[in-house]
Formats: sequence, structure tokens, C-alpha cells
Amino acid sequence: MAQDIKTYVEELARAAKEASRPLGFASDEARQAAVRAMAQALREHEDNILAANAEDMEAARQAGTSEGLLDRLLLTPARIEGMAAGLDKLADLPDPVGRVLEHRTIDQGLDLTRVSVPLGLVAMVYEARPNVTADAAGICIRTGNACILRGGSLAQRSCVAIAHALADAVEASGFPRAAVSIIETTDRAATGVLMSLRGVVDVLIPRGGAGLIQRCVRESLVPVIETGTGNCHIYVHESADFDKARAIVMNAKTQRVGVCNACESLLVDQAVAPAFLPGMFRELTDAGVLVHGDETVCAICRELGLEEGSAFVPATEEDWGREYLAMEISAKCVSGLDEAIAHINRFGTMHSEAIVAEDEQACERFLREVDASSVYANASTRFTDGGEFGLGAEIGISTQKLHARGPFAAEALTTYKYVIRGCGQVRP
Amino acid sequence: MAQDIKTYVEELARAAKEASRPLGFASDEARQAAVRAMAQALREHEDNILAANAEDMEAARQAGTSEGLLDRLLLTPARIEGMAAGLDKLADLPDPVGRVLEHRTIDQGLDLTRVSVPLGLVAMVYEARPNVTADAAGICIRTGNACILRGGSLAQRSCVAIAHALADAVEASGFPRAAVSIIETTDRAATGVLMSLRGVVDVLIPRGGAGLIQRCVRESLVPVIETGTGNCHIYVHESADFDKARAIVMNAKTQRVGVCNACESLLVDQAVAPAFLPGMFRELTDAGVLVHGDETVCAICRELGLEEGSAFVPATEEDWGREYLAMEISAKCVSGLDEAIAHINRFGTMHSEAIVAEDEQACERFLREVDASSVYANASTRFTDGGEFGLGAEIGISTQKLHARGPFAAEALTTYKYVIRGCGQVRP
Repeated sequence: MAQDIKTYVEELARAAKEASRPLGFASDEARQAAVRAMAQALREHEDNILAANAEDMEAARQAGTSEGLLDRLLLTPARIEGMAAGLDKLADLPDPVGRVLEHRTIDQGLDLTRVSVPLGLVAMVYEARPNVTADAAGICIRTGNACILRGGSLAQRSCVAIAHALADAVEASGFPRAAVSIIETTDRAATGVLMSLRGVVDVLIPRGGAGLIQRCVRESLVPVIETGTGNCHIYVHESADFDKARAIVMNAKTQRVGVCNACESLLVDQAVAPAFLPGMFRELTDAGVLVHGDETVCAICRELGLEEGSAFVPATEEDWGREYLAMEISAKCVSGLDEAIAHINRFGTMHSEAIVAEDEQACERFLREVDASSVYANASTRFTDGGEFGLGAEIGISTQKLHARGPFAAEALTTYKYVIRGCGQVRP
Repeated sequence: MAQDIKTYVEELARAAKEASRPLGFASDEARQAAVRAMAQALREHEDNILAANAEDMEAARQAGTSEGLLDRLLLTPARIEGMAAGLDKLADLPDPVGRVLEHRTIDQGLDLTRVSVPLGLVAMVYEARPNVTADAAGICIRTGNACILRGGSLAQRSCVAIAHALADAVEASGFPRAAVSIIETTDRAATGVLMSLRGVVDVLIPRGGAGLIQRCVRESLVPVIETGTGNCHIYVHESADFDKARAIVMNAKTQRVGVCNACESLLVDQAVAPAFLPGMFRELTDAGVLVHGDETVCAICRELGLEEGSAFVPATEEDWGREYLAMEISAKCVSGLDEAIAHINRFGTMHSEAIVAEDEQACERFLREVDASSVYANASTRFTDGGEFGLGAEIGISTQKLHARGPFAAEALTTYKYVIRGCGQVRP
């Protein structure tokens, strides 16, 4: 069986890689037309996608799946139309392929151009959200890449139904249907095989929880774009405008708690802690946020009469590194800018980090010295997002430094090649 | 002992990472001055570098090291001056750090810039060439990165002497001396520890043979830039000018055989094989090149009266994937452009691939459809080189698609960050 899975995934991936070739040099118009046909196919296959989804929902309910997950899994006519509309929007994106990045005459009169080209075969591994199937396939075809998809087992039937509809459309548009391939087994070993296919799969993008991402980073021989973990800090400098600081913390912590650009840790200058923190903590605890505080913070909470255990708890060393993704926040007093920067560079995940300060020099030092994909002065970390940054359709938020950093979109699915035209030149 | 090595390498790397911070936001002038001081330090420490090298040479001779390796290991006053001059040249390179790559106003009037920044801590693992120590440290400091170096065991004393001289200069220039760190043990376990330090080491660049590179690709949790393996093809199309084709093949195969941009495989259109190959093979065998031919090729060689075994041998399936790095070449007849492209996309290493053809459409299809970092029409693959391509000081030639592809230089040691300046904005 293990051998069967290996052969199955390898053959699927090799066929998808072959399918990537004609896509790779297709015209912009041909790729746009394919993506529009994919949108149309979703609308036309609505019935059997909903039927497959009903089976997934039934099985998930019987397995005792939580309401939150069930909601992510559920498809409705409106959600399918949303996926189709998303594809239509992708078709309109500017083409990231075929751009001339450099052009010059080099040694011996050779003509050199550096041109953007698709990566080839993109693998996406994701969890129980069927809509990622359409997003992922759409952005790949738009950018001239083939894709091999691996959906979550809970959403397997829905993902397969969507992928088949999309593959039909790709085929009807004149491309090999293997350009949208999906792994049709829930056996976990399949992901392992996918991760071993260096040279066939050009990049692996995991979209899901920390467990999935860490598994890919640890095990994959295929290059991975690491996404998602955000232990984001907001640092309140002694020069901060307290109203701005409170509004930014409340927005970054409570607007949406389950997202990677939410604030997980509050740092406050010792000098303003007694003046700033009481108001801040009242707002946080009123909103139901549990504070994990250091000694100074806990002392202030006690003075305020907040209840230990339900409103605040003493922080452990572990708390400085935690991504709660919940109504919890760690809070620490620091001696000043140096300690704040050092703390963030030690415990942060290079996602999004913010300072609140009226002192411009402090802001500029923070922006320069904090090592993160997105650094803010006087704004909420919640803005870190491909759409907000004007990148078009976001694929994820990279917390690595190579290839793509921060929110990334279509361009991250391209590489480049050097094209050299001569008339018989040899190297002297 | 294993624990000792682990602690030793980890502490060294953590100190180097800390040292990368002040470098990361130092001015262009300060980094230039440091690199010039490094050049000067090599000149001043010539005596003890030569003494250390003499010990390495002595030990290598006693271990029965080959003349070729001994020559790579040997340092002379002229070679040390060459290293110093190389550093002076690096100082003059344009600064790749601090470039504003994008600037726009986004949601809520936020000001967003995308700015190039150093990677942080760069690890370089290399073999018995002491000069790589100065090259690697120089390009890292120039680009605002710290480095942790791991030289080959044969060159250990020389590399350490060079690195110490460079670290002295870095310290005298006002930066932490840990910005140039070198692993001072020949224990192989040290490389394994280095490869595990994801989050401390930002990128690992192996410079050496295929064994070293493959070990890094397989084992490293730190992102790797894969370099070096070149199974480069020259495809002679039926429309080729035979004189150009022969000159290009001879240059690409014989000018320097031990390099990754040398030609390892010749593909010839069936239709012109009888007319082209006899002259080509006479030139190759006169130069001492052994031909590994398919059936048609072997038949032509026999007709020519070439000696089987010394001038040509039948190719095995394995030959199509081999990088000989020697006076050997594989040769195969193909039915035309389609088969040539398919063969190269199957057996190539995405390094450098060339077509020789007077038919412009054939050239353009080849350039578009072959998946490699550098694709040539009517020129030798030997031009694939950072210097030739006008990139300045080359670090290596990447055969991967992410982050850096083909010859790469200073810019590959940078990433970017998004800097967002606001006045209290929160996400609606």
C-alpha cells in the first residue's frame, strides 16, 4: 500500500509537471481565458459540488467536528459564486510572466535578457477549506503554473469535485487537464511523497495551521514557502499618544483573534506604565481579553482590582513566544527602545511588529532595527495583508526571508531565466 | 563531545547573528570602510597566513593529497594580494541595501515602502580553497550580513588565519568581530549543527562538490541556495551552421573541463548527423575527448575508424544524466526540436543549455521551452558566469528556482521589509 501511494503520487506529479510546460509558454490571453472558463465551470457544476459537500458535512458531523470547522467546510450557492467571482477577478490581474527584468549587451556582443517565467509545478497543501482549491488552482493557471493540490481529509469530496470541474475547464481551454491535479486519497503518506519530489515539484506552499507548516518545513526536500505564524508585538514608547496606543492595541488584539496579524504581545515603557496601563487593561478585560503579565504588570492589575486568574495571570517565560490566536495577550514592561527591539528580535516570528510613539527618532530606529516582514509606526498590525498592501490576490504571508517575504501574491509563483542570443560566440 | 560541538556551534552562530544587527543598519560608507580594512588586514597578516598555510600543505602532502588539490590549497604572496585586491573591488560595488523597491499610499492613508535589507546571518560551507574565506566574508560584510564560515578540513589552518585577520579588521572598523565567525573544528558534526539552526542562520550556501551540496539540500532545515551541478547540453539543429556548431562545442567542452558551465552532452538532429558528426568527432577525439554515443553515433564513429574504448564507447542510460567534469561527452541523435527539448527538460540540471541553429523560429522555441537558468542560441554555455553577465562579484550559480536563479551575486544576500508609517490608523 505504501508503495502504491508512492507510485500514485509520483505519477500524478510527473503528469502535472509535463502539463506545466505548455502552460508555461502560453499567451496571457490563453491563460486568462482558461481562468474564466474555470469560473464558469464552478457555476455549471454547482449541483454536484454541493452534493459532494453535503457528504463531507454529514461525515464531519458524525465525527463530532466543531461548529467552527463545520462552518469552514460548508459550501452554499453563494459561497460557490464567491469562488467563481474570485476566479474572474484573478483573470483580470496583470500578467506577472514574460516581463523583461533586465536587458543588456554583454561580452562578445551577446544579447542578454532576464525574463520572468512561471515556476512550473506548484504544490499546495491545505486543510478543511474547500474554497482554497479554487483559489490555488486559479492563481497557478493565471501565472502559467500547473498545480498539484492536497486538501484536508474532512473536505476531500468537496475539494475533488471542485478540482474536477476546474480540470474540465482547463482541458476545454486547450491545456492538459493534469495542469489542475488533486491527490484523491486521504492517506497521510501522500503528503510525505509530495514533499520528497524535489526536481518534479518546484515549490510547496502549505496553507493551514502551525502543525502542517512545521511538518513541511522539517520534512520537505521540495523548497517550501513558510507562512503564517505571527507572534506580533505592539510596543508603547514613552512618547506614545495613549489614545492612539489604546485604539491600536484594541484593534490589533480583538478585531479578529484567529489571524496571524493579530497582536499577541504588548510591550510598554516602564516610565509610562503606571499612567498608560490601567486604562489599557480596563479596556482589554472589558472586552474579555486575558492578560499574561510580568511582575510590574500583575502589580498594576492587582492595584486596579482586576481578578487574578480570570482577568490576568502571571506570565511564564513561554508566554513571550506564544501565538495565542485567542482573547489572550502577554504584557511586559521594558526599560526603553533598546530592550523592546531586543525582545522582539528574540521572540518575534518576523511577521508584523508595531511601535506607538510620537518621537519620530524612536519610530525610525524601531522601523530600521526590528527584523520582520512588516514594521509599523503608529498603526495596527492588522494591515499586513496582500489586499491591503495592494498586491492583488494574496496567497499567504511569508515569515521567511528568501524568495518571498511578508504578504505574497502572483509574482511569488514566478522565477526568471537568462536568455542569451548570439551568432556563434565562444568564451575567449 | 557531540553535545560540546552542538553548544559550540550554536553559541558561535548566536553571537554572529547578534553581530549582524548593527551591520544591518550601518551606512554604506561604514561597510565599505570595513571591507577595505579587511583587504589591508590580509596584506598585514601575510606572514602568519602563509605560515598557517605551510602547515596545511605539509599535512595535506603527508596525507597523500593530489597535486590538483594541493594547488588549490596553496597560498602565495601573489594569491594573498589577489584576495586583498578582490576585497578592494567588493568595496567599490554598488550598495544593494536600502533600495526603495516600492512606495505607495495604501488604505487609511498609510505610507508603505518596500525596502531592501540584508538577510542577517549567512553560512557558507566550502572545501579546500582558503581564498573562499575572504570572498565569502567580504561579500557578506559589504551587503550588511554577518557570516559564519566552515572551511574544508584540509584548509582549516589557512582559513582560520584568514578569518581571524578579517575579524580583527571588522572589529577595528567598529563592528562586532563575531560578524566574521569561523568554525574552528574539523569535526564533521559541526556542519550538521549549522544546518539545524533555522531561525538563527538565515541562509546556507554550500560552495563545493556535488556531495557537499546534496548533503546540504537533504539535511538542512536552514534554507539553502543550491549551486553548481551543470549537465549542460548543446543541441545542433538541422539548420545549424556547422562551423559555428563545432567551435561552440569545442569551446564549451574543452576550454575548462572542471567547471559547471562546461558542455557535458551533445544532441544532434538525425537529418544532419552524417554530415556534421564526422568532422565534430575528429576534432573532439583529437583533443582527447571520449565520446559516449548512442547507436547512431557509435556507428558513425566506427565508420570513421575511431577506436572503440579509447575514442568512443556506447552510452548507457546513466550517461544522459552525468556531469563528467572531464574530457568526456555524451552524444545522441534526436528526431528534431521536440525530442531535443524533452530530453533536456528530463536530463538537464536547469543550468545552461544551448541550441545552434540558423532557423530563428527554432531558436526562439528552444529559448522559450527549455527550463533552465540560462538558455543560449548560437553561443557557448561557458558564458554563464556572474562576471560575464555583468552582476559583479559572483557567489555561485544557482540551479534552483526560488530566490536566486543562475549566476547570483550581492543582491541574493538581501531580502526586503515592508515599512508602514501611520498616525494612529486601525483596520476598519
